[in-house]
Amino acid sequence: MTDKPDDKPDKPRRRLPRSVREQEILDAAVQVFSKRGYRAAVVDEIAELAGISKPMVYLYLGSKEGLFVACVRRESARLVAAFREAADAGGPPEGRLWAGLAAFFGYVAEHRDSWVVMHRQAPEQGEEIAGELAAARRSVMAEVTGLVGAGIAEGGGGPIKLGAEDAEFVAHALVGAADSLTDWMERHPGESPEAVTVRLMNVMWVGMRNVLAGEVWSRPEG
Amino acid sequence: MTDKPDDKPDKPRRRLPRSVREQEILDAAVQVFSKRGYRAAVVDEIAELAGISKPMVYLYLGSKEGLFVACVRRESARLVAAFREAADAGGPPEGRLWAGLAAFFGYVAEHRDSWVVMHRQAPEQGEEIAGELAAARRSVMAEVTGLVGAGIAEGGGGPIKLGAEDAEFVAHALVGAADSLTDWMERHPGESPEAVTVRLMNVMWVGMRNVLAGEVWSRPEG
Repeated sequence: MTDKPDDKPDKPRRRLPRSVREQEILDAAVQVFSKRGYRAAVVDEIAELAGISKPMVYLYLGSKEGLFVACVRRESARLVAAFREAADAGGPPEGRLWAGLAAFFGYVAEHRDSWVVMHRQAPEQGEEIAGELAAARRSVMAEVTGLVGAGIAEGGGGPIKLGAEDAEFVAHALVGAADSLTDWMERHPGESPEAVTVRLMNVMWVGMRNVLAGEVWSRPEG
Repeated sequence: MTDKPDDKPDKPRRRLPRSVREQEILDAAVQVFSKRGYRAAVVDEIAELAGISKPMVYLYLGSKEGLFVACVRRESARLVAAFREAADAGGPPEGRLWAGLAAFFGYVAEHRDSWVVMHRQAPEQGEEIAGELAAARRSVMAEVTGLVGAGIAEGGGGPIKLGAEDAEFVAHALVGAADSLTDWMERHPGESPEAVTVRLMNVMWVGMRNVLAGEVWSRPEG
C-alpha cells in the first residue's frame, strides 16, 4: 500500500489484461483474508492493496464470498501443483515422496498466508469451499498412495506382504501427519522444510521399511 | 421417531430432571445434525426425536446455533475423555498410547454420528466452534506428546538422542494421522479399531524405535 503513487490513488496505474489483473486481486485478497480473517476482511482493503477500484473488484470476481472461493481454488491448485511437480521429477518412489513432501512444506513455509486461508479459514466457510479442499486433498492422496504402493512393491521381498489397502493406509497417515505438522513447523521456524520432511520420512518410511522387513509391533504386556 | 406413543405426541412422556432432558435433546441433536447437515437440520425434528416440545428445546439449549455448540462441546469432551481414560490406565508408554488410540478409533467407529458432527460439520461453523475443537485437540496432543516423550526416554539408550521437540513432532504426526485415518476406517468397516491402531503403531512406533536405534532415513540417489 505504501508504494502506490500519490496521484490518481484509486485508478489502475497500468493497462493490464483482465487475467493479469484478476491474479493481482487474488494476491491482495489472500493477504487480506489471511491477516484479518474472513469476517473482518473488507473488499475496500483488497481493492486498495491491488491498486484497483472496488467496483472493478466486484466486476471481476464478484462478492467477498466469490473472492474467497476464487482464492481457495487458486491456492489449493498451486499447492497441489507444487507437490505434483516435485514428486513427478523421477527417481525411486521414496525420493519422489520426499521431494513432494518437501515441496509441500516449502510451499507452506513460503506462503504462510495462503496456507492460513486454506487450512484455518477455509474449513469454516461452508460446503462449497469444503468441497474444493476435499478435491485437492483427494488428488494429493491419490499421488501419495501411488508412491507408497511403488515403495511397497520395491521393498516387498521380505516376510511381510503389503498391498493396496496398506498403501492407502500409509498415505492417509502421511497426508494427515503432514497437515498437522504444519502447526509444528510454524512453532519451529528455524527448521527448514527439508529438515521437517526428513523427520517425517524418519518416522513413517523407516517404520514401513521395517514392517516390510518383518518387524511387527505388538502390544507390550502390563 | 417410530416408538413414540400415539397419545400426546408433543408432550414429554416422563418427568425428568432438566440435566437428563438436556442430554436427551443433545443425543437427538447429534443424530439430526449428522444426518441432515447443519444447514438443513431443523429444531422441529430434534424436538420430535427427543420427545419434547420445540419451545422447551429453545428454553433449555437456545437457538439451533446454541444447540450445535453444545453438541460439539459435549462430543469433543467425550472423545477426549475416552482417549484419556484408556491412556491413563497404566503400563508402559507404548501400551498406553496404543490403548488411547484404540479408544479413539473405537469411539469414532461406535459414534460415527458424533464424529461426523465434530470432524466434518463443526469446522465449517465458525470461530467459536473451531475454538472448542482446537482446545480438545490441544488436550489430546499434550497427552500424546507426554506418552511419546516417555517412550523416547525408555528407548533412549541407542546412538540417536531425541528430545522434547522430537516428541512434539511425533505427536503432531500421530494425531494428524489418526484424524485422517478415520476416513480410511470408514471405507474399511471390516477392520476393527484395534486392528487400525496396530497398523498405525506399526508405521509410527516401529519407525521411531528404529530411528532411536540408529536407523536414519536418507534420500536415495537418483
